Amino acid sequence: MINDIPDSHPRAASLRMRHTIEKYRTEGLVADAGPIAHGRGEAFDYILGEETIKPVYDDIIFAAALLVLAKHPVISINGNAAVLVPEEIISLSNAIPAKMEVNVFYGRTGVREKKIADHLYSSGAKEVLGVNPEAKIPNLFSARGNVDKNGIAIADVVLVMLEDGDRTKALIDCGKKVISIDLNPLSRSAKDATVNICDNITRALPLLEKHVNLLKNDTKKCNSVINSFSKKKSESNIFKYIEQRFAQLAKECLTNE
Amino acid sequence: MINDIPDSHPRAASLRMRHTIEKYRTEGLVADAGPIAHGRGEAFDYILGEETIKPVYDDIIFAAALLVLAKHPVISINGNAAVLVPEEIISLSNAIPAKMEVNVFYGRTGVREKKIADHLYSSGAKEVLGVNPEAKIPNLFSARGNVDKNGIAIADVVLVMLEDGDRTKALIDCGKKVISIDLNPLSRSAKDATVNICDNITRALPLLEKHVNLLKNDTKKCNSVINSFSKKKSESNIFKYIEQRFAQLAKECLTNE
Repeated sequence: MINDIPDSHPRAASLRMRHTIEKYRTEGLVADAGPIAHGRGEAFDYILGEETIKPVYDDIIFAAALLVLAKHPVISINGNAAVLVPEEIISLSNAIPAKMEVNVFYGRTGVREKKIADHLYSSGAKEVLGVNPEAKIPNLFSARGNVDKNGIAIADVVLVMLEDGDRTKALIDCGKKVISIDLNPLSRSAKDATVNICDNITRALPLLEKHVNLLKNDTKKCNSVINSFSKKKSESNIFKYIEQRFAQLAKECLTNE
Repeated sequence: MINDIPDSHPRAASLRMRHTIEKYRTEGLVADAGPIAHGRGEAFDYILGEETIKPVYDDIIFAAALLVLAKHPVISINGNAAVLVPEEIISLSNAIPAKMEVNVFYGRTGVREKKIADHLYSSGAKEVLGVNPEAKIPNLFSARGNVDKNGIAIADVVLVMLEDGDRTKALIDCGKKVISIDLNPLSRSAKDATVNICDNITRALPLLEKHVNLLKNDTKKCNSVINSFSKKKSESNIFKYIEQRFAQLAKECLTNE
């Protein structure tokens, strides 16, 4: 199905992601709720023009500085992220370096976690945590609170992608710094995270890796980036960008009449 | 699953719709691509505040006038619409009165159409067209162009919900008036339709029925509504509303700092 989409199709990248999500849902890596979540992301990406918008670069640089200075950085990976960007995740984890931990919201039975981990191993991962996690984070009921004792349990900075809001909040409540990548700037994850990268993971991860490499040996620069960051200003800039996009659309409608 | 969601949950309505889409996907009424499309709608509904926004009422009244004055109005129904709002569709079709026709984008084999029609029959429909359509509309390849010779083939006004853009365009190119209900004001359906109702179908259909009933015996009023409508103005008003919503969000961020 994926190979049926010609490169020339104006929406080829978006359609391929859609097929990837659908394919891996049938194989049990993506949860049944995964496609609906993916659709929400698609809509916000469409609003942004399917490109990394200017104000997001500051957020990416701040996130890179947090990851570089972290003592125990961990990348939290769910089904959607694992199937859409396995190589990009692994490459980022090597660059930082950070541990990778599987985290699933639905049906934490160990089966899906194992499939996700195997997918990452077959994409080149050396170590994937979280398949049979024994530690717990507080304030999350049921198996959703399970975390790996060598991973998120001891992490100071956690990168979450396309995650549910409860989880981000619980990690923040544990005193961890959370970097979320979430196209919905109104989501609870985006609001509660230390920083949200309002971008598609396919574009954000390579950019994050680039800035990790740029900041890697420059603790002074990292500290200066971190000290000058304001979450509220960051959120406000994203909202303003979308505001201006719709103002432009409204204007174009009337001009073309 | 649906009954597990308490009425008190702040997002109960949204979660129930999600479960309905998922349930009927497994039963073959909703296409595999249906959940992703539903997710896109969820995102836009979230932006609107999950309510019928003020500028949309003008579009609903215009759509009602078109339906009342139509000679052969037809409601086009896909899987997502049939499972989310079967009673609302049937009730609107009785009020106009309009024919109902099943239209599916994916896998036009007759099996899914039959299931959708049966679902509508079991919800009280007397007649559902489109299960084995023999007519064709031009400019649509494959079975997607199939329409019922007693339905869309001879319709002058077609109401489409959550449909794909190619189809709306093809209907417009046939000289038909098309009313779309699409939460994405940037979609091709929304742009190409005679009017787009930027609202959730669960809210829009009862409002549309209400205004059909108010305009039903008032041809003069219908004509006046139709003559004063501007599609460009309508689109512009929606974009302006969203612009103002994000302007407000940007402002709140900085005020709360």
